[in-house]
Amino acid sequence: MQHLKLDDVMNMERRKRATLINYLSGFKSANLIGTKNSTGQLNVAVFNSVVHIGANPPYFGFILRPVNVPRHTYQYINETGYYTINHIHKSFYQAAHQTSAKYDTDVSEFEAVGITPEFRGDFFAPYVAESHIQMGLELKEIHRIECNGTFLIIGKILEIWLPDNSVTMDGHIDLSQQGTVAIGGLDTYYEAHKLNRLEYARLQKNA
Amino acid sequence: MQHLKLDDVMNMERRKRATLINYLSGFKSANLIGTKNSTGQLNVAVFNSVVHIGANPPYFGFILRPVNVPRHTYQYINETGYYTINHIHKSFYQAAHQTSAKYDTDVSEFEAVGITPEFRGDFFAPYVAESHIQMGLELKEIHRIECNGTFLIIGKILEIWLPDNSVTMDGHIDLSQQGTVAIGGLDTYYEAHKLNRLEYARLQKNA
Repeated sequence: MQHLKLDDVMNMERRKRATLINYLSGFKSANLIGTKNSTGQLNVAVFNSVVHIGANPPYFGFILRPVNVPRHTYQYINETGYYTINHIHKSFYQAAHQTSAKYDTDVSEFEAVGITPEFRGDFFAPYVAESHIQMGLELKEIHRIECNGTFLIIGKILEIWLPDNSVTMDGHIDLSQQGTVAIGGLDTYYEAHKLNRLEYARLQKNA
Repeated sequence: MQHLKLDDVMNMERRKRATLINYLSGFKSANLIGTKNSTGQLNVAVFNSVVHIGANPPYFGFILRPVNVPRHTYQYINETGYYTINHIHKSFYQAAHQTSAKYDTDVSEFEAVGITPEFRGDFFAPYVAESHIQMGLELKEIHRIECNGTFLIIGKILEIWLPDNSVTMDGHIDLSQQGTVAIGGLDTYYEAHKLNRLEYARLQKNA
């Protein structure tokens, strides 16, 4: 096996190091976060760091790197308190990825990449019409991570939109069937195939 | 489409709600975290929340729910400052999942589920021998998430073990080829197939 010590990693060319380390956490979620500022400017950006925080009540977090991603997501959430999280599907992952380009402040990434904003009821932030698993969230907590200045943004899920009959009696969703994709590294997109649904792990007899 | 408001989610049966919400963040990383306490007791537990925090220097985070996962991971990391993160592959995901059962304090989950602890050099915490993408980390920060009492644990990667020739010249790893799996919900395991590696997103001409 190959052994990379911290010094080896720190001596890598910057882009190579970023690529390698981004693969090492394993597969990542692929979501678009939609926001709107107080003057009505819309923003949408791809995030691969949405993470489950809790179900009762439902909270999600995501990691925001002010240096590498558009600051608009952070600004607009901070300013208004609302945002949407929308699954990226196989049908539009290329357009979703393109939202990570550095557009000017007065450009809506929705228009620039050809993704459709969708307003539902009186929810403040725009959903992504191309996504059929959509959540509307309210900002709850921001944690600044001291070691490198990134932020963990935590929100409460206020509403969920998803296809009729997509949730089983016991709460399962077939993510493959929905076409939801996964991300590896910074820019590699994957479709997934179910291996198995395992039972809730209990102590084994004679173990 | 189906519209679930927060009240609908809160009125669901507890297990169904946990299952549903756990699917909604999208695909998750599948890792085993290995720890050892000061008296030499070993622990290993499955986590689906390892998330990239930064590459320069390399930091990973994970979410720890004291209520639902063995507290040993938290105790041992807090006590010793070291832990390992090991990819779960298709070849042993069933055994890896079984680590989430509630074993007694004096039981090593390694022995109980048939996973092999591996000590490398003088690194304090045990790696998982069945995993061929292994990282050794040092604890850097613990953030308590106020809204539900979970923790974000952040560590610095001190060393990486991975197969010879598994990293390309520009830092890519083929996670599918390595057999690394993804998790959906709490208990559904997936293998992934690459759709495409996209280019770094730049502004499009005429866009």
